Amino acid sequence: MKSIKTVHITKINAATEQEVTDEIIVEKILNIFVNRNFYASLMCTPNEIIELTIGFLFAEEIISSMKEVVSIEELIENNICVILKKDLEKDFEKRKAFTSGCGKGSIDLDIFEELNLKPVEGNAKYSVNEVLSMMKEFNNKSQLFKETGGAHSCSICDRTGIIFFSEDIGRHNALDKVIGKSILDKINLNDKLFMTTGRISSDIAIKAAKIGIPIIVSHSAPTDMALDIAKSCNITMIGFARGNRMNIYSGEHRII
Amino acid sequence: MKSIKTVHITKINAATEQEVTDEIIVEKILNIFVNRNFYASLMCTPNEIIELTIGFLFAEEIISSMKEVVSIEELIENNICVILKKDLEKDFEKRKAFTSGCGKGSIDLDIFEELNLKPVEGNAKYSVNEVLSMMKEFNNKSQLFKETGGAHSCSICDRTGIIFFSEDIGRHNALDKVIGKSILDKINLNDKLFMTTGRISSDIAIKAAKIGIPIIVSHSAPTDMALDIAKSCNITMIGFARGNRMNIYSGEHRII
Repeated sequence: MKSIKTVHITKINAATEQEVTDEIIVEKILNIFVNRNFYASLMCTPNEIIELTIGFLFAEEIISSMKEVVSIEELIENNICVILKKDLEKDFEKRKAFTSGCGKGSIDLDIFEELNLKPVEGNAKYSVNEVLSMMKEFNNKSQLFKETGGAHSCSICDRTGIIFFSEDIGRHNALDKVIGKSILDKINLNDKLFMTTGRISSDIAIKAAKIGIPIIVSHSAPTDMALDIAKSCNITMIGFARGNRMNIYSGEHRII
Repeated sequence: MKSIKTVHITKINAATEQEVTDEIIVEKILNIFVNRNFYASLMCTPNEIIELTIGFLFAEEIISSMKEVVSIEELIENNICVILKKDLEKDFEKRKAFTSGCGKGSIDLDIFEELNLKPVEGNAKYSVNEVLSMMKEFNNKSQLFKETGGAHSCSICDRTGIIFFSEDIGRHNALDKVIGKSILDKINLNDKLFMTTGRISSDIAIKAAKIGIPIIVSHSAPTDMALDIAKSCNITMIGFARGNRMNIYSGEHRII
């Protein structure tokens, strides 16, 4: 399915007004079914939807590797059905329990226990110059953003450069797509870093912790909760990586 | 509750490296209870949380005005309890039905019917210069963004200037906060416009349609689904409003 649509717009620049065509990013509903039951709907850019589904189900703790997946197919356009080896019954129960757990008050304190996040162990080190030149390569790669201005990008990299790269209208979806690619390709992430154009909020830090990636680099800002998670999980968190500058918020030992 | 936190970071600028303190934006869980039952948790910047709760419950179609609200109070920090005149039972059922409805396939076609969106009727007109100068005022107002680089802003304006202004880590929350303020102050929105720093995705367009605001102006890009909604609901949608430029995607009749 196409990720870009051409539309007619009125373009105003100071005193001039022109009727022109312009490219805008496509947003579609992706319906995910697990074991033939409806599981979730995501609003997304409809490319790499198999990868997005895999990454999303990993983040949801429905799967931990492709070994648990019997089949995954697009039934009709933008409707993905995943068949698992295991019964989903107890996972739906777990999901429900977590959701209602949010209402019990002290989630801020209990979040690490509830989520069962473990420290990330990888200790690969990167130089400041390596990080900044990867960020430059990353920024140049965003085709959808260049054409529409409406996409976030994510990539997984090591010192050889960008390994996986994805774009989506949603920060989370772009990350789920590259996580999905890593799971499909069975690559080891504990010496990699991931780059994002988006802010690092708690959910982004949680996804990084779950997949075990030790370094997050963002073009943008972090939140305090993301920083707490990064510190608890031994994650190196870098924000505002732009040009020659960057801020290291945690895990300085991995940056030389 | 504070929206900004001071943390220690390592700031790298070309060859220099400094240990400094820096401001980062606070992200907290807001738990919303309706009629003493847990309803939802939002990740947000913890200011204006009463307004956020009201705006969120409006968007969820739990309330349509303050007449339906008996009381709203913060039970413990970041836990808001709303007591309604009506029983919530059937609304919970409706919510459940809508969620599972997403799995039925053709939501792209049915979305307007399911959401019961009506065309927005207001026909106030604004000049290009009015819109661009309001955008300039709006951009200058973002205190949290200036201090942390991690906030989105939303405002509701008319030709007298900015009426309500809010910031949050989330695009949706910032909009819900200004919608909440409009509901609390019972102001008529059908001659107003709303401004956002964030992308205009379908959910933002849906919120504008529900509250009946005729003009959306964004610093950023729209998606194709948001544009479809704007066209169906007679909403004027403007993107990339920056400096002297802007793109009008729909509803050109309101811009003179």
